[in-house]
Amino acid sequence: MNDSSSAIKSALHAERLIALRAAMAAAGVDGYLIPHADEHQHEYLPPYAERLAWLTGFTGSSGMAVVLRNRAAFFTDGRYTLQAATQVDGELYVHKHLVDEPPTAWLADNASGMTVAYDPRLFTPAQVSRFEDATRRAHTTFKPLGENLIDRIWTDQPARPAAPVEIYPEEYAGRCSAEKRKVVAKWLEKEGFDAFLVSATDSVCWLFNIRGSDVEFSPLVIAYGLVKSDGSAALFVDPAKLSDDLARHLGKGVDIVPYDALPDALAKLKGKISTVAYDRDTGSRWLADNIAAAGLDAKPAPDPITPIKAAKGHVELDGVRAAHVRDGAALTKFLAWFAREAPKGNLNEITAAEKLEDFRRFDNLYRGGSFPTICGAGGNGAIVHYRAQPESAAKIAPNMLVLIDSGGQYLDATTDVTRTVAVGSPTPEQRRRFTLVLKGHIALGSARFIKGTTGSQLDALARHALWQEGLDYDHGTGHGVGTYLGVHEGPQRISKVGNTVALEPGMLISNEPGYYKTGEYGIRIENLVVVKPADQVPGAEKPLYEFETVTLAPIDV
Amino acid sequence: MNDSSSAIKSALHAERLIALRAAMAAAGVDGYLIPHADEHQHEYLPPYAERLAWLTGFTGSSGMAVVLRNRAAFFTDGRYTLQAATQVDGELYVHKHLVDEPPTAWLADNASGMTVAYDPRLFTPAQVSRFEDATRRAHTTFKPLGENLIDRIWTDQPARPAAPVEIYPEEYAGRCSAEKRKVVAKWLEKEGFDAFLVSATDSVCWLFNIRGSDVEFSPLVIAYGLVKSDGSAALFVDPAKLSDDLARHLGKGVDIVPYDALPDALAKLKGKISTVAYDRDTGSRWLADNIAAAGLDAKPAPDPITPIKAAKGHVELDGVRAAHVRDGAALTKFLAWFAREAPKGNLNEITAAEKLEDFRRFDNLYRGGSFPTICGAGGNGAIVHYRAQPESAAKIAPNMLVLIDSGGQYLDATTDVTRTVAVGSPTPEQRRRFTLVLKGHIALGSARFIKGTTGSQLDALARHALWQEGLDYDHGTGHGVGTYLGVHEGPQRISKVGNTVALEPGMLISNEPGYYKTGEYGIRIENLVVVKPADQVPGAEKPLYEFETVTLAPIDV
Repeated sequence: MNDSSSAIKSALHAERLIALRAAMAAAGVDGYLIPHADEHQHEYLPPYAERLAWLTGFTGSSGMAVVLRNRAAFFTDGRYTLQAATQVDGELYVHKHLVDEPPTAWLADNASGMTVAYDPRLFTPAQVSRFEDATRRAHTTFKPLGENLIDRIWTDQPARPAAPVEIYPEEYAGRCSAEKRKVVAKWLEKEGFDAFLVSATDSVCWLFNIRGSDVEFSPLVIAYGLVKSDGSAALFVDPAKLSDDLARHLGKGVDIVPYDALPDALAKLKGKISTVAYDRDTGSRWLADNIAAAGLDAKPAPDPITPIKAAKGHVELDGVRAAHVRDGAALTKFLAWFAREAPKGNLNEITAAEKLEDFRRFDNLYRGGSFPTICGAGGNGAIVHYRAQPESAAKIAPNMLVLIDSGGQYLDATTDVTRTVAVGSPTPEQRRRFTLVLKGHIALGSARFIKGTTGSQLDALARHALWQEGLDYDHGTGHGVGTYLGVHEGPQRISKVGNTVALEPGMLISNEPGYYKTGEYGIRIENLVVVKPADQVPGAEKPLYEFETVTLAPIDV
Repeated sequence: MNDSSSAIKSALHAERLIALRAAMAAAGVDGYLIPHADEHQHEYLPPYAERLAWLTGFTGSSGMAVVLRNRAAFFTDGRYTLQAATQVDGELYVHKHLVDEPPTAWLADNASGMTVAYDPRLFTPAQVSRFEDATRRAHTTFKPLGENLIDRIWTDQPARPAAPVEIYPEEYAGRCSAEKRKVVAKWLEKEGFDAFLVSATDSVCWLFNIRGSDVEFSPLVIAYGLVKSDGSAALFVDPAKLSDDLARHLGKGVDIVPYDALPDALAKLKGKISTVAYDRDTGSRWLADNIAAAGLDAKPAPDPITPIKAAKGHVELDGVRAAHVRDGAALTKFLAWFAREAPKGNLNEITAAEKLEDFRRFDNLYRGGSFPTICGAGGNGAIVHYRAQPESAAKIAPNMLVLIDSGGQYLDATTDVTRTVAVGSPTPEQRRRFTLVLKGHIALGSARFIKGTTGSQLDALARHALWQEGLDYDHGTGHGVGTYLGVHEGPQRISKVGNTVALEPGMLISNEPGYYKTGEYGIRIENLVVVKPADQVPGAEKPLYEFETVTLAPIDV
């Protein structure tokens, strides 16, 4: 970008800030919160929800702007500090660290006695409570506004996604929706709730056996669901996305209700049911308020679908295995091609990633990537969340380690795999550290553990070899993965951070220790593994589990 | 106990319950809570604080009674259910499980609209909040009473302990009190508090370099402390316990204030300082209320002394090593004696434990046991919290495993060690499982780990060998240990339960995996280990730590 285009961009964002302040004045409030979030707390936002980017110019995945009448602040975390410095005009926004100097603290200092508005659809009840708690002494008032102020001034805001909803066939899902709803209904009965309002779109898709393409990288449908304790349900979705086939697929037990009619539908439940549970982490403050406004008792409870969905059945696992055979073949072809081409010095991070995508695309069930491929050559491999940009992609040349973390969405599974490949001859240090990472990867992958063990308890197995030489890596060791759904799904997790979720048979999780030397190279070896019962040993007193590695691709030696 | 003495005891407890209800009526309340606790949340209660035992007859370490006008309930956990059934009259008290059907739930069902009183000295603010939260819907009111109602009716209540306070010399403590207070003052400054009210008596003893004998098994003084941000302090203690030497030892920076004058002393601080921090887990509701009543700002904060005290200096560690040489010699002599005597079949659990105590008593610096010795023969070894009673102690005979968990209080250290000894020839299964426990013990004891690692992260190392055969043990792997102080001290801990405290050099902690076969035998192997820096490996990026095992006693093979 040259100086004049940068100046034009600054003027644009200055204008937008003026427009927002006018909208704030019209709404009678002193401040406005602009998070990087949509109504369902998605990891990747649909274009219409990129309000923070539109207002400030910031394109990273973690940030927030707080605009007051005569000052404004922009917050992001350590990964994006440099990017924010380039993209967000320091004349318009004070730059702050999202974790060390969070918006709550800045408001406590700068918004004493003021009324700060927010869109309750974009904040969880837990987030709003944090704002209220932090500013209690400053007497700041937080006011939910029915209309989003950015939407009011963003004249060419993209439309909401309207991709058709697709049936996800039982051949892959393993169970019909009615059967899944029965499991949720049982949970409702046990907990004493009359209904659960499903706000996480991966839970909605799983529950109704539907998929879509409203969001990048995950085949999600933007929708809410409501399951009642008799197993009947409602799906809140834009009717334009539906076909007759789909209505037949959903069947009689499911009411189809327009997405925007959720408040009315809740109001009609008054008198029929009384307690409606919702998830405080994926459900918005708007949802909780609407349950209460309908005269129902809003009960926070963790989404019951998350753990049910995580423990996959045998049909899903057959799909997972089959997809990994094909994904492994594509990756193996790519690695062979890469071994031939890379030493010639004509590849860069983006052309290599595109070629890998080409190999995956041969597959009939392939539907796209499951996240933006991380292809990091040399020092870029040490940047854990690296994403090459066309204008700055590094050349791949001999005597480099190249880290390639990629995955595909297939109708029968979601994959995620990382390989680290040496172009030319690695140094003795690189060999040694690669071996330590591989040792940890194998120690975890071959572990046996008893029922009740959590991922946190196993995390040290993956790090132990590195620790012996005073080394470590600064990320988790494993995340859950969905079935043709999200590439990051809970509740299971292998991490230093304490976690009370036991690993259960059928859970799919990544095994991805690494090592990163800043500015020089990065190493990560990632396979997906499934928790399964191990052969019982004579005299065993507890059920014994182990991992089955489903990823199939050679590891560079 | 024969039937008639049991009837007399019942009548006694019935009378006491009537007296309590009369006291409740006089105080104008509908109920009263009787916890098993004293003012400082000690693990072992001084006799005057055994109010629950006096009222109900229950002598276990975990219980609570809730008395309403026309009904009463007694609560204990799974370890004591059988004992409570024998000791606590079912005609007077409904028996309930402390965890599964807690007092909070019972009150919500039985005390709707009532006013239930409690002694705010015996409850932490967190506990009171739990009672209030659980009964919000039942509109139960909890009322702190200035006077304890049991004390009012317990005519022959033992006096409060008045053991003299002893100076703990710098030769063992390593640092003088003024230096320790400076460290706390720094913390106060960092956190923005004006003072910290020290409620944990182990913290008080550590801070002022004093010891006493107010409580069994730990050389504690019943006292409060107050440290101000300039390093000056006050010690709240019964003046009868003090000598002139002690006043000199404490020096000019420390005001000596009578224990009961704490509220007045706080009131005098008004205008001089404003915020006083206190610990919500060891500090009582009474403390928090008195800080507030003095017009000061009461701030809950974790006791800063706990982590400082846990990381021992080199003088303390020299003492720990020296004491373990002597303790190991005593234990080794005992084990040799036991190997000779046990096969004769004339020992029982109590005579063996007494002999071990005899060997320890030879030492000049020995001051007593650090907890009640657990000597469990055969099936009793599988009861984790077993304590032999004179009338029921099991005979020690050939072909038994005997588990002996004991420890001493020495002027220079506190010890804790478990050995499991085979009398005669163990079965192949016992040998195999002993080997698995020993493998876990060695894997943990020889682990190396990087700075920042918590005990929770290492816990799996101790269990891994057992897990491979479908076995486990149902207790933590390691607890912190004080220096001539408590045998259970935080904040470090090696456990399945998530814990965010990193292991730091100087921390003393137990390494005690086990295996228990109900009704047959128990195995536990326990050493104390100290965290210390390991030799750095070339290329290491993080400080590397390891354990130094300080316990010295042979392990039966």
